[in-house]
Amino acid sequence: MRTAAVVTIGTELTTGLRQDTNGGAIARALRDAGYHVESITALPDDAAAVSVVLSALMARCALVVVTGGLGPTHDDITREAAAHALGRPLVRDAGIAVRLEDLARRHSAPDARERMLRQADVIEGARVIGATSGSAPGQVITAGEGRLVLLPGPPAEMHPMLDEVLASESAFAPPVRFRCTGISESDAQARVEPALADHPDVTLTLLAAPGEVEVVLFAPDAPASLQRARQAVRAALGIACFSEDGSSLPETVIGLARRRGERLALAESCTGGMASASLTEVPGASEVFLGGVVSYADALKSALLGVDATVLATHGAVSEAAARAMAEGALRLPGATLAASVTGIAGPGGGTADKPVGLVWFAVAAADGPTIAAERLLLGDRAAIRTRAAATLLDLLRLRMEGD
Amino acid sequence: MRTAAVVTIGTELTTGLRQDTNGGAIARALRDAGYHVESITALPDDAAAVSVVLSALMARCALVVVTGGLGPTHDDITREAAAHALGRPLVRDAGIAVRLEDLARRHSAPDARERMLRQADVIEGARVIGATSGSAPGQVITAGEGRLVLLPGPPAEMHPMLDEVLASESAFAPPVRFRCTGISESDAQARVEPALADHPDVTLTLLAAPGEVEVVLFAPDAPASLQRARQAVRAALGIACFSEDGSSLPETVIGLARRRGERLALAESCTGGMASASLTEVPGASEVFLGGVVSYADALKSALLGVDATVLATHGAVSEAAARAMAEGALRLPGATLAASVTGIAGPGGGTADKPVGLVWFAVAAADGPTIAAERLLLGDRAAIRTRAAATLLDLLRLRMEGD
Repeated sequence: MRTAAVVTIGTELTTGLRQDTNGGAIARALRDAGYHVESITALPDDAAAVSVVLSALMARCALVVVTGGLGPTHDDITREAAAHALGRPLVRDAGIAVRLEDLARRHSAPDARERMLRQADVIEGARVIGATSGSAPGQVITAGEGRLVLLPGPPAEMHPMLDEVLASESAFAPPVRFRCTGISESDAQARVEPALADHPDVTLTLLAAPGEVEVVLFAPDAPASLQRARQAVRAALGIACFSEDGSSLPETVIGLARRRGERLALAESCTGGMASASLTEVPGASEVFLGGVVSYADALKSALLGVDATVLATHGAVSEAAARAMAEGALRLPGATLAASVTGIAGPGGGTADKPVGLVWFAVAAADGPTIAAERLLLGDRAAIRTRAAATLLDLLRLRMEGD
Repeated sequence: MRTAAVVTIGTELTTGLRQDTNGGAIARALRDAGYHVESITALPDDAAAVSVVLSALMARCALVVVTGGLGPTHDDITREAAAHALGRPLVRDAGIAVRLEDLARRHSAPDARERMLRQADVIEGARVIGATSGSAPGQVITAGEGRLVLLPGPPAEMHPMLDEVLASESAFAPPVRFRCTGISESDAQARVEPALADHPDVTLTLLAAPGEVEVVLFAPDAPASLQRARQAVRAALGIACFSEDGSSLPETVIGLARRRGERLALAESCTGGMASASLTEVPGASEVFLGGVVSYADALKSALLGVDATVLATHGAVSEAAARAMAEGALRLPGATLAASVTGIAGPGGGTADKPVGLVWFAVAAADGPTIAAERLLLGDRAAIRTRAAATLLDLLRLRMEGD
């Protein structure tokens, strides 16, 4: 595999004020295009330091992708640093300068105008990319055996340019990604490894996050083997896998509801609206998601969902009976055909010996069948328990619609 | 300022499968402790490559902090790489080994046991930190003028160890951070820069995210000037600033409600539960947040909030009248003393010439005063509009409770 390196420029990154998301996104695109990424380096806005690092990386990598520091202000030093590292001058691109003049004219201060025009400076011999979009273009410079690619920092400008650079290189098999829920990372590994025994050329990576495990298969140079491994792994994962096309769990649930003509309603207690919020992230969710109730206080469970106060008094708000009554209350909302509820103890306080932090009850009520309830003891801190509970709620809806 | 570098280890990072969050968090802690962070480098699980990078960084930095790769599996190579870079042997720490033996005994396979015990291997002369917590300890190695710190990757294990390492060094003035909302990044800059004119030794950084602008002042070596600048900037930001102690907007709202004895309820349409979910992220939210209604469909606005169907037919669901009726409906929920509503067009579809994508109406209804409504035209894509709308909703509650 050819070696690549990623460099992200910005003092906001090296001071920890801003989380770098470009570095990982670029590395992933490079990996998908068949590169081995040897490092992702964040550097401050310091032209001398950037120049030293770029020289070192260019000496050992086929491709170095740099993002950030191409804007108009004094701390945008990537052009100068790269020119210095390559030992080439900067030359002003007349076409880009004309385009920028328009913008520059709106600035009254002469120094602001000159700063704006710096974005038209390109390294001698560079191929300019993305020059029709706003502000700074990207640059691709071939030097010896290697290439240096300079891209702007804003992701919306950067990604199309990166795609353009990599478009000619994507003859590699992209990784296969199974998104799963309701299964632990180690269980997923135990299921998948036997399925891969006959495919030594396929690399397995597991990624766990609260409420989700992603199983990734890599074999950029062996597409046929990757396809066979895909089928074996898919079978091994069974119902735990909710998507093979990158769709999120909320997107999967919305898609299933649309195909089946369901109208969904939720009753959320410990998740406080997280499941509803995630469903409504999906554009067009309003076609199938009616809404629901965030019944954090018991009084709202009774007032809005018709949960009998004696159920709450007898069994408690975190109980099978309460979860069933909440789901059935949500199913009575006008138009609903399928409803689900969640009630649990997210912590850090509120746990008891009988009902510890992490205990969560769920129920699914449907117009065309019996109400099903499920209990889980979820692990982690408050945020993890809530995230897992919201994912479990959506997964129960998915499994109900898939007919399991 | 002394120079430091951060290294994060893991092939999942350099393949872009996992976003590195440790690197930025460590850099921030180092910056707050008065270090200049020269780079944050993510490297794959490759002992030879890691060793080369560590040698180079040790040669030029007073402090190198490495995270990840200290676990028990074959791809945990940080110990070996660091030992090689320093030219020192690994020695098995008897105390840690005894502690691990217990865990190791539960593994039947001898190779699993031996792998587990590798976590007791420390670099000769290292100071061991965090040895009482689970699994791998951290290590601090002094070599020449510099120090190398090895920390495990899981943030919950890493952060306490990092705090321990930096505890003795925090004689620097930490940065001042103002969290603001309802103001653009450029407006914030225009307000703050004049306030900083008399404080050339204070560095200003602005960080914008949908719904929030953070104003950060740095002057690690000039605490007196930083305090004066803090007062001037606080005055310049006015009501836009919701926290100086790092509290999030939901934490600020929950804290105000607790002090005033309010009981909050929400009626959310376009935000689909995001504001409720963010309030319930705060531990103890149940003391002041009752819950509310996700009234995505108009039928639920009427059924659960009592919004008159003629209001919806006459003015539409995205209107001042609908927002007012929703907030007043939420205020009628049992126990509520203060309620707020949001209804808008998040896009990408659904916009018209009269009511474009981004138009959002809000209302706040209180037991002790008139209902107030507010209209905003919010920018960005669906996710940004929803995030901004949820932040605006909470901010209107904050301003109402602060008496503005």
